[in-house]
Amino acid sequence: MAAFLAGSPLLAAPQEQLLNVFDFDAAAKAKLPKTAYEYVSGGAWDEWTLRRNRTMFERIIFQPRFFRQVDKLDLSLTLFGQKMSMPILVAPTGTHALVHPDGELATVRGAGAAGASMVVSTSSSFPLEKISAEARTPLWFQLYTGPDAEGTKERVIRAVETGCKAICVTVDAPYQAPREKDARNGLVRVFREDSGGSRQRRYSEEAPGSPSGLPMRFQATLNWSFLDQLCGYAKVPVLVKGILTKEDALLALQHGAAGGVVSNHGGRYLDGAPSTIEVLPGIVDAVQGRAPVLIDSGFRRGTDILKALAIGAKAVLVGRPPLWGLGAQGQDGVRRVLEILQTELAWAMGLSGRSTLAELDRSLVRLE
Amino acid sequence: MAAFLAGSPLLAAPQEQLLNVFDFDAAAKAKLPKTAYEYVSGGAWDEWTLRRNRTMFERIIFQPRFFRQVDKLDLSLTLFGQKMSMPILVAPTGTHALVHPDGELATVRGAGAAGASMVVSTSSSFPLEKISAEARTPLWFQLYTGPDAEGTKERVIRAVETGCKAICVTVDAPYQAPREKDARNGLVRVFREDSGGSRQRRYSEEAPGSPSGLPMRFQATLNWSFLDQLCGYAKVPVLVKGILTKEDALLALQHGAAGGVVSNHGGRYLDGAPSTIEVLPGIVDAVQGRAPVLIDSGFRRGTDILKALAIGAKAVLVGRPPLWGLGAQGQDGVRRVLEILQTELAWAMGLSGRSTLAELDRSLVRLE
Amino acid sequence: MAAFLAGSPLLAAPQEQLLNVFDFDAAAKAKLPKTAYEYVSGGAWDEWTLRRNRTMFERIIFQPRFFRQVDKLDLSLTLFGQKMSMPILVAPTGTHALVHPDGELATVRGAGAAGASMVVSTSSSFPLEKISAEARTPLWFQLYTGPDAEGTKERVIRAVETGCKAICVTVDAPYQAPREKDARNGLVRVFREDSGGSRQRRYSEEAPGSPSGLPMRFQATLNWSFLDQLCGYAKVPVLVKGILTKEDALLALQHGAAGGVVSNHGGRYLDGAPSTIEVLPGIVDAVQGRAPVLIDSGFRRGTDILKALAIGAKAVLVGRPPLWGLGAQGQDGVRRVLEILQTELAWAMGLSGRSTLAELDRSLVRLE
Amino acid sequence: MAAFLAGSPLLAAPQEQLLNVFDFDAAAKAKLPKTAYEYVSGGAWDEWTLRRNRTMFERIIFQPRFFRQVDKLDLSLTLFGQKMSMPILVAPTGTHALVHPDGELATVRGAGAAGASMVVSTSSSFPLEKISAEARTPLWFQLYTGPDAEGTKERVIRAVETGCKAICVTVDAPYQAPREKDARNGLVRVFREDSGGSRQRRYSEEAPGSPSGLPMRFQATLNWSFLDQLCGYAKVPVLVKGILTKEDALLALQHGAAGGVVSNHGGRYLDGAPSTIEVLPGIVDAVQGRAPVLIDSGFRRGTDILKALAIGAKAVLVGRPPLWGLGAQGQDGVRRVLEILQTELAWAMGLSGRSTLAELDRSLVRLE
Repeated sequence: MAAFLAGSPLLAAPQEQLLNVFDFDAAAKAKLPKTAYEYVSGGAWDEWTLRRNRTMFERIIFQPRFFRQVDKLDLSLTLFGQKMSMPILVAPTGTHALVHPDGELATVRGAGAAGASMVVSTSSSFPLEKISAEARTPLWFQLYTGPDAEGTKERVIRAVETGCKAICVTVDAPYQAPREKDARNGLVRVFREDSGGSRQRRYSEEAPGSPSGLPMRFQATLNWSFLDQLCGYAKVPVLVKGILTKEDALLALQHGAAGGVVSNHGGRYLDGAPSTIEVLPGIVDAVQGRAPVLIDSGFRRGTDILKALAIGAKAVLVGRPPLWGLGAQGQDGVRRVLEILQTELAWAMGLSGRSTLAELDRSLVRLE
Repeated sequence: MAAFLAGSPLLAAPQEQLLNVFDFDAAAKAKLPKTAYEYVSGGAWDEWTLRRNRTMFERIIFQPRFFRQVDKLDLSLTLFGQKMSMPILVAPTGTHALVHPDGELATVRGAGAAGASMVVSTSSSFPLEKISAEARTPLWFQLYTGPDAEGTKERVIRAVETGCKAICVTVDAPYQAPREKDARNGLVRVFREDSGGSRQRRYSEEAPGSPSGLPMRFQATLNWSFLDQLCGYAKVPVLVKGILTKEDALLALQHGAAGGVVSNHGGRYLDGAPSTIEVLPGIVDAVQGRAPVLIDSGFRRGTDILKALAIGAKAVLVGRPPLWGLGAQGQDGVRRVLEILQTELAWAMGLSGRSTLAELDRSLVRLE
Repeated sequence: MAAFLAGSPLLAAPQEQLLNVFDFDAAAKAKLPKTAYEYVSGGAWDEWTLRRNRTMFERIIFQPRFFRQVDKLDLSLTLFGQKMSMPILVAPTGTHALVHPDGELATVRGAGAAGASMVVSTSSSFPLEKISAEARTPLWFQLYTGPDAEGTKERVIRAVETGCKAICVTVDAPYQAPREKDARNGLVRVFREDSGGSRQRRYSEEAPGSPSGLPMRFQATLNWSFLDQLCGYAKVPVLVKGILTKEDALLALQHGAAGGVVSNHGGRYLDGAPSTIEVLPGIVDAVQGRAPVLIDSGFRRGTDILKALAIGAKAVLVGRPPLWGLGAQGQDGVRRVLEILQTELAWAMGLSGRSTLAELDRSLVRLE
Repeated sequence: MAAFLAGSPLLAAPQEQLLNVFDFDAAAKAKLPKTAYEYVSGGAWDEWTLRRNRTMFERIIFQPRFFRQVDKLDLSLTLFGQKMSMPILVAPTGTHALVHPDGELATVRGAGAAGASMVVSTSSSFPLEKISAEARTPLWFQLYTGPDAEGTKERVIRAVETGCKAICVTVDAPYQAPREKDARNGLVRVFREDSGGSRQRRYSEEAPGSPSGLPMRFQATLNWSFLDQLCGYAKVPVLVKGILTKEDALLALQHGAAGGVVSNHGGRYLDGAPSTIEVLPGIVDAVQGRAPVLIDSGFRRGTDILKALAIGAKAVLVGRPPLWGLGAQGQDGVRRVLEILQTELAWAMGLSGRSTLAELDRSLVRLE
């Protein structure tokens, strides 16, 4: 009996051994230059929020029910009138060319192969039109902006004309991100010298801790009146990404937002901010179903996603997982990561006695 | 083998050095092929529930009482009319031939030598009749089933005719188990190629994460009406194994169950499910003594068992411990593991001032 | 100035480098045979209670007060009419000859040099009369007993005639201790072969986990009526050692005890029992000052002692620390360990704004 | 693209790699003799309070708000009529010559270059007048004292005449500090032999644990009437440094203090004292704005400072960080450390939607 266990030529090939998102993380780390890997994976300052994004999932415990005939699992949903095969989207992240030469072109092909929608970042390595040309699923557009109101409007109109079905405006980045790994890797300087295009402009020549004693501004001038304007000229739903309090959630709705993304930017901006999963219940309760609440930051398992959906999120955005897929295996890796999360979500639903997203509610979880 | 002990003729013989269940775990790990050991010992996904099954015992603290004349310790009980010498049973686990060539035949001999009852799994490596022929203590039968109602009924009737005193129907496995160690070890493939019989059928050729994007069904079609049927034709008490909520406990009683086993399948199915010891108080309170509540998942010490009995469980099932005993020392190891747990339970009872199972109640524990 | 920092011949000699109890623990570990060190330092089963005895001190936080003129620190007290220079006693522990050839003779000399009282164990390596002959401070006697009522009475009367000022009857040892390190070290066998006297009789030839399936009895027959008898013929105060609940504390008083020692036997008997410091507040509150409450188990720092005194204990017994002192440096080590604890206690009192034991109350601590 | 990531001659020089206070800690550790580094960085006894000073910051979670137009960040404040560019001061610490030959002269130059005020310690390595001559920002004076009332008065008057704008009287050091690292390093002895001046007098020849069994007195005779006297003759505001309870905070105000510093002396005196950040809310609430509450002990990040300000502290003192800067890079290191903290504070304010200190209140934090 021991013989067949010792070693078999029929064992799965190495690539198939990447069974979960953590495997893709490790594979990307092994393959990418340190600077690129740490740019993707690092967090702000002491990375406390980055870690808390993971640990707080452990305070949510399933209450599975059985004998409920769950042989048909259905993960589909309609969001802002758009049919989706699963409540998982590719979150907006910048500069995919850092991890793969085809950048967002590969990412969007992988997402399309998995049937997932993608939110394209303002800081993409490729023009939106090129990315859109490769898309097989609807795109959304993530907006970074500043005091140039006209330029912003043009950018949004261009995104909508390119076919984007929603605008995600990021609110949690008034200043640059305090990521020390990037500074140690010299990423600021590298960007300044090696990129010519406008896409990397957000990396200033003035380093943090400069004689002025002040951090570098990014979107610091924005206030809620900007959202009024944006919702006025955008022809598609506008979501506010970066919500961490119920107060801001309600303000976003008052100023015209069609929905919100509970996010701490993957732990990449304000260290000491809460994990998103811990503030989700309060925000969902405050919004009272008037608009869809989405969420991101720290999702690595289908069970994580199921916890958020049970609490009341309508969909989950994943940022680093597809980037690790991209870094490890290109567009196929992006597809695999998304399929893994989809399978894990379905699996966890089945194992907890729920067949459809409509059956997910707070009775599925106990908050510790 | 004596050599590694550095050679004192006066030291206890190696076998006697296995003093507790953890020692048998380590011995089995050292002796078994990795694939077999990890199949037995591993858990679902990130193994969070597997770990929590251990850590939550630490939140239950004894309140021992003294000077109560505890020189006579009595662990005997009557369960479903059956006299037992201790409130410890061998839990149903599958495919014992993976860890020992004699499989369940050795296990049942060891259990009998210790005076413990055994719950035989549907997925046993040997036919129930052969296992029964070796039994010196009453057997129970664990039932896995699917849409084939007639086949199920025949299986149950055969078990009862073979002498099984109770049926344990598992409810927490609507889909296959997401155990990544098994996948990494190629266990799916191994089963497909090396076993001919129907017993391994539950391992499908279709791997998780297949193009369909859906996990593999197992008992997904079952609902509570199946329990009505089962209790109708079974001539023995039917227990529902896998209860984690008071709602399901009450439903099980409504649909005819004679008892329940609070279980998360040893942390092998839904990762993120609670430890059983943390949900036991609520379930015991809900059942209000109308039927015996049993428990399994994570029990490794007599003190663990004492905690469950004090909270209100009538008996405890142990799964991995006898398998580690089997892997380390065959049927003698099974016997030793069960005797160790029995001795530890008696010892802890004596040291906490309780002589009989009837004296065990919540005053013995503080829940932190 | 930098020069003297590099290395100076005037640095303290190694022996003086033993600054605290942990240093003596390490020194004893380095010097003693593994069997002896582990006998002294080990705990029951998984040693959970042993660890909890340490960690629970961290849940008690000082609330120091300042500007209270604390230039005169006074640690003296009167206990059962006996003047003591500090609220620290040597706890009863057995078989000191395991760690030093002079055994309890050296211990009592060291205790006397430090001005501390000692509680002599029934299981001492030397006869009580010999130990008493070396004592410079009052002794107490710790009583282990069994069904032989006459022998017990004789032992107690002999102790009182020898000059013992109090009897401490241990209640938490109805069965032998489940200490696996001792079993692994073959300590059972060692005792059987190397000792001739009756003092080691409590180590039976029958190992735990023997065919009987039951642990070995020790004081299993005792009940509260024994305390009535004992208090009847003892001419000195009787303390009950091993109290962990307020119920037993009150029963002890009802049956004649003059005081109690909150103890879990240093984590050496029932693993899973609470730390003593966590149950102390409830027991002190229940006793309401009717009798002195003492405490032991896990005290290693003057700050630990101060926490117990602030909660309401009248004195603290230390078991392993003097044994580590004995093992490391003989009677001088015993003295040093006790002086260190005395100094640390005085120091912590001064730093928290309290000059005398009478000023210690719950306002000094916050229980987390 | 991969090429520029592999290694670039344009990467930042090593010195610039010291990005945060922890980097300066490590650099100082690498550069300084062990004795000097451990004197600066160590804590009392088991260093529990030292660690808790860090960990308790993790129980305070930001509630950032967005879209609030935070392009102008202003950290300035007025404290006791004194304009300050930031709410960060150099805490009083002794004997800077241990870490740099220029001692406090370098420290004060660095503080001035950063625009921060400094509190000069009684135990400085250089006379106050020399330090003052190098100052570019207002100084405060920290007072240690004893029974010599006249000498104390002279010292205070001299400090005020030298230009100090406030007196910080330390209340938490009635006895010497129980720091075992210093004892192990022979620091007591070193001081006795190598320093001639009065500045090191507080290190006595009598070591802790001496035959007297008592710790060495320091400011043990002081009581609140001393504060009455001090406030009577001091011509500048007197702050009480070392407050850990609301009771002492109120007593300090009653006896004339103009403010208080919540401090546990950096975890260097009473081990087991609470972290300052955990007692700050209660003290701020008790004081009800009648006087400024400052705080120190454990602050290493701008986010730590922001948490204290949000709870209600008016300013934060940092002790070890400038000493690590001093040890690593002399006066430039002091400047850098202070600028880093200033930048981090501003950055965290901007990222949490607050522009000025006046906007900081408890709505910014959730206390876990």
